[in-house]
Amino acid sequence: MTVETDVDLGPDRLFAALADPVLSSAALLNEIASRHPEAISLAAGRPYDGFFEPAELGGLIDEYRRYLSVEQGLPEAEITRRLFQYGRTAGHINELVARNLELDHDIRVDPASVVVLAGAQEGMVAVTRALCTGPGDVLLVTSPCYIGMLGAAKLLGVEVAAVPERPDGLAAADVAAVADRVAATGRRPVALYLVPTFSNPSGHTLTLAQRHELLAVAASRRLLLIEDDPYGFLAGPQERVPALKALDPGRHVVHLGTYAKTCFPGARVGYVVADQRVRTADGRRGLLADEIALIRSMITVNTSAVSQAVVGGLLLRGGGRLREANRERIAHYRRNLEVLLDALNRSFPPGSGVSWTRPAAGFFVVLRVPFVADDAKLAESATRYGVLWTPMSYFYPDGGPRHELRLSCSALDPGQIEEGVRRLAALVRDSRKESEQP
Amino acid sequence: MTVETDVDLGPDRLFAALADPVLSSAALLNEIASRHPEAISLAAGRPYDGFFEPAELGGLIDEYRRYLSVEQGLPEAEITRRLFQYGRTAGHINELVARNLELDHDIRVDPASVVVLAGAQEGMVAVTRALCTGPGDVLLVTSPCYIGMLGAAKLLGVEVAAVPERPDGLAAADVAAVADRVAATGRRPVALYLVPTFSNPSGHTLTLAQRHELLAVAASRRLLLIEDDPYGFLAGPQERVPALKALDPGRHVVHLGTYAKTCFPGARVGYVVADQRVRTADGRRGLLADEIALIRSMITVNTSAVSQAVVGGLLLRGGGRLREANRERIAHYRRNLEVLLDALNRSFPPGSGVSWTRPAAGFFVVLRVPFVADDAKLAESATRYGVLWTPMSYFYPDGGPRHELRLSCSALDPGQIEEGVRRLAALVRDSRKESEQP
Repeated sequence: MTVETDVDLGPDRLFAALADPVLSSAALLNEIASRHPEAISLAAGRPYDGFFEPAELGGLIDEYRRYLSVEQGLPEAEITRRLFQYGRTAGHINELVARNLELDHDIRVDPASVVVLAGAQEGMVAVTRALCTGPGDVLLVTSPCYIGMLGAAKLLGVEVAAVPERPDGLAAADVAAVADRVAATGRRPVALYLVPTFSNPSGHTLTLAQRHELLAVAASRRLLLIEDDPYGFLAGPQERVPALKALDPGRHVVHLGTYAKTCFPGARVGYVVADQRVRTADGRRGLLADEIALIRSMITVNTSAVSQAVVGGLLLRGGGRLREANRERIAHYRRNLEVLLDALNRSFPPGSGVSWTRPAAGFFVVLRVPFVADDAKLAESATRYGVLWTPMSYFYPDGGPRHELRLSCSALDPGQIEEGVRRLAALVRDSRKESEQP
Repeated sequence: MTVETDVDLGPDRLFAALADPVLSSAALLNEIASRHPEAISLAAGRPYDGFFEPAELGGLIDEYRRYLSVEQGLPEAEITRRLFQYGRTAGHINELVARNLELDHDIRVDPASVVVLAGAQEGMVAVTRALCTGPGDVLLVTSPCYIGMLGAAKLLGVEVAAVPERPDGLAAADVAAVADRVAATGRRPVALYLVPTFSNPSGHTLTLAQRHELLAVAASRRLLLIEDDPYGFLAGPQERVPALKALDPGRHVVHLGTYAKTCFPGARVGYVVADQRVRTADGRRGLLADEIALIRSMITVNTSAVSQAVVGGLLLRGGGRLREANRERIAHYRRNLEVLLDALNRSFPPGSGVSWTRPAAGFFVVLRVPFVADDAKLAESATRYGVLWTPMSYFYPDGGPRHELRLSCSALDPGQIEEGVRRLAALVRDSRKESEQP
């Protein structure tokens, strides 16, 4: 064994997946972004900054305290404990979350089936851990898939099987086929993870018919559906399709939600709805939510009580609803998407070799380009053209199309989006010229 | 395969460790506690409630905002981003944490080697994940061991090897022997987890000489030491022993810290210091801290930015120090421990069949009792005697002495401690009578 003198821990001493693109691509993107602070980022999927008000934080906590005191009738000592102590590992704003799910999403659940989490990301880890029992258990994921889910599976060493999305989204028949193929090899398809509305990264939204078909496959295969719904709130009145969890009397759906977009990401508050009835090997009976709370007690112990109070304050201020409180934000995101689609139309006329998706809402557009959209091209794009985007290959568990990239328009102003697309158009033009040279 | 009709997911569909005592004992303790709200809990290791002030939270956030604006010179838009956006996955109060480590603990580290976490618990998961590469890698732990570390290892499927503590604490020779025994079977001892000061649960504090011996074993075995230090701040001027990380020019120590006891648990703010130089399989060079940040980006993405601001405000208010700000709390905890030891002296005279540890400080005393201190006895103790404690067997990875229990005095008032010990004495008396009956 050779020991490198300038290194304390070499590759043999580090978890191998740290070198897997699923984990390291985020590091690379951040590094490129930090080396080019002047570049316009069509890569970042974060919310727009303009709606945040730091001076409000204290008032929101006070609003939640008033609610505990006046509406819940809790004594001062109990309120203090809620805000400062370890607390219930399932969280303390669960009733407000359940009310919000009913008012905004038509999902009716007992607060006992809700676990408040340190973001939906913690839910991906905890749900995967609860449901995947060993090497033979396989998690199905859409392909492409949100990278956070792929990362959570990597950390736990859980195998994933990709279900390719079709041009009109995920087909239940394809889910059934992959589940059956997994089962035929003696492994067990445990659950399917998907973002059914304004998906990240593909932008797809499943129709009501597609959702019912998916639920039927879930029932027939004893497959749970892990529904992740960060973008559903963006749907206009005409576009709204019920969440899978709103169509689920058979309890085949585990629902993940987040307040990162409707409140703010820095709160790190998300939740899971897991009303499945379980029995453990040692005879404990209860809900899957109880088991997820047990697992999360060994990950983060609990969600920040202060963050829960701030989100609780925002929920109370909106009368339990967040759609109305987010009217301006929703308008901003929808206008940004229009601006992006218009700019693409102008910059890439027919024959330009560029095509793209046209989602009704959401943060993301997928672009097909006449060059290989890899890390090297991204670095060139940042350095020479001042524009960042995300290679779509990051999102494919089995490797994917090499000529696609994801554009995000959520964090920018319209002027930045237009300038970003102009820069991207220059990159495309020059790349085509290069490839046409002998 | 039989499907239970009243259960959606049976034992075969759930992660097996959910039925392991390491995970389920916490659920059991909580359940017993909630069924007996009137019982005095000598089980709960949480901080005392009396020092928390809900009305201060907003002011602490404002204090941190002023610091960013006035001392750091950040523009308002950047301050807003710090408080509301996803942010750096390594956290945003790292400089304040590094300063606090230097002022309170004499640990000098570059802020770049600090990752702010959702409690030290997230650090146990992330550090274990970073360092354990596969089935052959073994984590050494003290026996008894803090249950959160055992739980983190269970979630990740990492094997642990127990190093029994001696009556005067952990011996370096025992660590070496276990490491060598693991290595002799073709497995790799990767790191040793320990709480070197006022340990949970045993109460031990390693002497300076023991620490130097341990560091020497770490160096000779290429074993990292994962030092968890939640209770070091309780040491009086005469008792202070340097943290392992303060004695570590060779970078053999990964240091975990928490603000749960010095600030408050509900914040869920902890940190890791990981200054080891690493090189990953894909050629990335940097600090172990960078890799831990990458892993945590797939667990929680980041620590609540609001919680970081509140803890930042507390650190600023103390001029970077927390020992002085915690003077009253430290006095409370030390007095409570005295009250507990005095009450034990009074209730269990020589010949009572009960003996116990006498730590100088910390939250915990271990009691040896003349009955089997198991779950059944705990339930009886709660129901018939109105007192809760923790079976020590929970803390032994390989099963441990059956006649020991842990008492905690941190969350109570002196009068409750005395009454709790009286109730415990009644349990002991009746148990002896029963065992003496023919």
